[in-house]
Amino acid sequence: MAVVEPRLLKGFRDFLPAEQAGRQTMLDAITRAFEACGFAPLSTPAIEYADVLLGKYGDEGEKLLYRFEDNGGRKVALRYDLTVPLARVVAQYRDLPKPFKRYQAGTVWRAEKPAHGRFREFMQYDADIVGSASPLSDADCIAAGILALEGLGLTRFMVRVGHRGVLNALLAEADVADPKAQAEVLRTIDKLEKIGRDAVREILAGLDGVGPDRADRLLGLLGDGRDEAALDRVVAHPDASPGVAHLRTVMRVLEAMGHGDRVGLDLRIARGLDYYTGTVYETTLLDLPSVGSVMSGGRYDTLLETYGVPAIPCVGISIGVDRLFAALAELGCAPTGATGPQAVLCILGEPLLAAGVRVVADLRRAGLRAESAPEPAARLKKQIEYAVRRGARFALLLGDAEAAEGRVAVKDLSTGEQASVALADLAEHLRRGASKG
Amino acid sequence: MAVVEPRLLKGFRDFLPAEQAGRQTMLDAITRAFEACGFAPLSTPAIEYADVLLGKYGDEGEKLLYRFEDNGGRKVALRYDLTVPLARVVAQYRDLPKPFKRYQAGTVWRAEKPAHGRFREFMQYDADIVGSASPLSDADCIAAGILALEGLGLTRFMVRVGHRGVLNALLAEADVADPKAQAEVLRTIDKLEKIGRDAVREILAGLDGVGPDRADRLLGLLGDGRDEAALDRVVAHPDASPGVAHLRTVMRVLEAMGHGDRVGLDLRIARGLDYYTGTVYETTLLDLPSVGSVMSGGRYDTLLETYGVPAIPCVGISIGVDRLFAALAELGCAPTGATGPQAVLCILGEPLLAAGVRVVADLRRAGLRAESAPEPAARLKKQIEYAVRRGARFALLLGDAEAAEGRVAVKDLSTGEQASVALADLAEHLRRGASKG
Repeated sequence: MAVVEPRLLKGFRDFLPAEQAGRQTMLDAITRAFEACGFAPLSTPAIEYADVLLGKYGDEGEKLLYRFEDNGGRKVALRYDLTVPLARVVAQYRDLPKPFKRYQAGTVWRAEKPAHGRFREFMQYDADIVGSASPLSDADCIAAGILALEGLGLTRFMVRVGHRGVLNALLAEADVADPKAQAEVLRTIDKLEKIGRDAVREILAGLDGVGPDRADRLLGLLGDGRDEAALDRVVAHPDASPGVAHLRTVMRVLEAMGHGDRVGLDLRIARGLDYYTGTVYETTLLDLPSVGSVMSGGRYDTLLETYGVPAIPCVGISIGVDRLFAALAELGCAPTGATGPQAVLCILGEPLLAAGVRVVADLRRAGLRAESAPEPAARLKKQIEYAVRRGARFALLLGDAEAAEGRVAVKDLSTGEQASVALADLAEHLRRGASKG
Repeated sequence: MAVVEPRLLKGFRDFLPAEQAGRQTMLDAITRAFEACGFAPLSTPAIEYADVLLGKYGDEGEKLLYRFEDNGGRKVALRYDLTVPLARVVAQYRDLPKPFKRYQAGTVWRAEKPAHGRFREFMQYDADIVGSASPLSDADCIAAGILALEGLGLTRFMVRVGHRGVLNALLAEADVADPKAQAEVLRTIDKLEKIGRDAVREILAGLDGVGPDRADRLLGLLGDGRDEAALDRVVAHPDASPGVAHLRTVMRVLEAMGHGDRVGLDLRIARGLDYYTGTVYETTLLDLPSVGSVMSGGRYDTLLETYGVPAIPCVGISIGVDRLFAALAELGCAPTGATGPQAVLCILGEPLLAAGVRVVADLRRAGLRAESAPEPAARLKKQIEYAVRRGARFALLLGDAEAAEGRVAVKDLSTGEQASVALADLAEHLRRGASKG
């Protein structure tokens, strides 16, 4: 048989136990938060008919789809996100009770150029509400995301909330009508914080389809995009009025829920994907703004139409699990999880094998993480080395004397202390010891 | 934009909330069991270089691989199981401490002909020990699987344990040497239970490369394949002896652990995949034997060599999550999970919006699943209908009178009973009520 080099595709990753245990702790925390907010789980396939996914992500996004023909010659693609498959589900099962509140954690694939923090396979964790146009639903998605991040111990973050309709009205009010100019304007005002108002004005003034007058008018309307006054200035525009009212209710509800410190208005937010129609939001880690948004989303009220069903209002939020995990690690607060046994039993001689594995089995039934060293004929020293290598807190020593008395010697590998413990008390003894850290 | 029919590929499935919540409960139970046995989590990509997977599954298996070229023209494939990616990981990260005990739950893809209970995308949940040749490790994998099934409330199942080496020695002892005849013999003795010894003898006697004498000799050695005496009869064969000793220790350890009722010797087990070298096992649900094995595995001591590294002894077990879940449903004991809020707050009038969403936010922080009806201006009846539609146990009614007193009216939707509860006692009140079922 030909020898093959064991290797990974670029942009793909293995998560070895220490990291994966932490990721699972993180996913569990997000699950708890999403369930607390009334969302229920959904699972959809990794592979979809290609035409189900096409035409949803814009030209740039579409180029990144993993597309291929399956063994039956069908044109298929790996999912690019979890939002479009959700829309497919809702369009397909027309009698799902609405509102349909679902959460889904799943791997997605994008043929990006791999770079620091950018991968071709990564995980998203989404919560969406299908079938409600109420601003309470937008607030509910954002609240669910905030609870999730807080459940991970994060407090220093800001969900910045904007609105596509309001932003469009603002461009219209400033008389920026050319689509290419609009796109350039959005890219430019996004830099307000970084390069300052004067620099932004200069760029805008030089753009085709904008010029100095429109630049001034636009910046006059927008301000820095982050205070309520900007909403007052644009509300008079007929296209802006419903969006402004919606956005104000979203912010008021989040404030009332006690999430005021974690959210802020930001009219500069546009989001790249084609399907957003209303509220849009991104989340910045205040101590690590350079990683970009770790949690984003918005309202997409027209996506369902592409499947030939009547429009159903939808809103959702998506946590970038891998980016967030990397950021938590960089902030020194990465979640951790169990990566091995708490106790390893050293069986001192083959004749004690049966008694020994019974002790281990009983500990497992009592909810402890336990195993025996796999070579009962090996010397004690070797077996204790095994326990250390496995990262166990305790080595349990079972020799003839202990076995005869129904006891084991418990060696705390963190202190070297040793105690003789009756089998009946062993699980409780270990539990107490392990929780002492 | 062209309208696209929302549809799924054949052999692929959506899991809607009720089912997916149950699957998650099941996965959690398996995780607990595997962690109790000292296994730690690993995650590997869905996509691998094709050559990493090729040559591992036998001709039949290999045909089922999803293979394609990615956007960079690389030949890649979706994973077919979790065992080969584990072997790739161990070969790639040479300094992983051994034994390496890992668990992994993951989706795998096989381009099978879809049929009842056979899918192209399904989930496996594996536990493996890399770097131990000890029979205690085989027993540990089987014990982990037994704990997992017991954690799901199953008791009526049997892990049938055989050994490839012993089976080969048995064929050699009966002088069945032709590979094609060997394969036919294995297929035939597998039917012993279904069609009886006489019918099996007749088929064997008629096979090319077997004939009546070898058939009698084989059946004389094998017996029904399920009692210790068969081991005694074959142990004299030089190829059988180490396998028999190994297998006997595996069974003795499982017996000592208290798992004796769940395991049985069965020398007829062969397993299809090419990579198994020693112990092999399958699991039958005693009340639903027709679904086939729900948990299988074995020892594969030579798989690592295909990556150009020295052989490392490995053993593992794999739970067929989807097949098991379907079987549990058929047995009427499918796991369930939360699929929505326990309590829905009905806000009786827009002015109470802020007070209302605060109540909801506080319940969530207290660990309850809660949401508000999204239309605070709607009539009470409509809001209660919403609570019912969402499957909530409680509707919470917040009107002006209640708000002024710091209370809500709690309506138990299962009984119709209504009580006035102070906000400070609300979480505890709901928790007590919900646990009354």
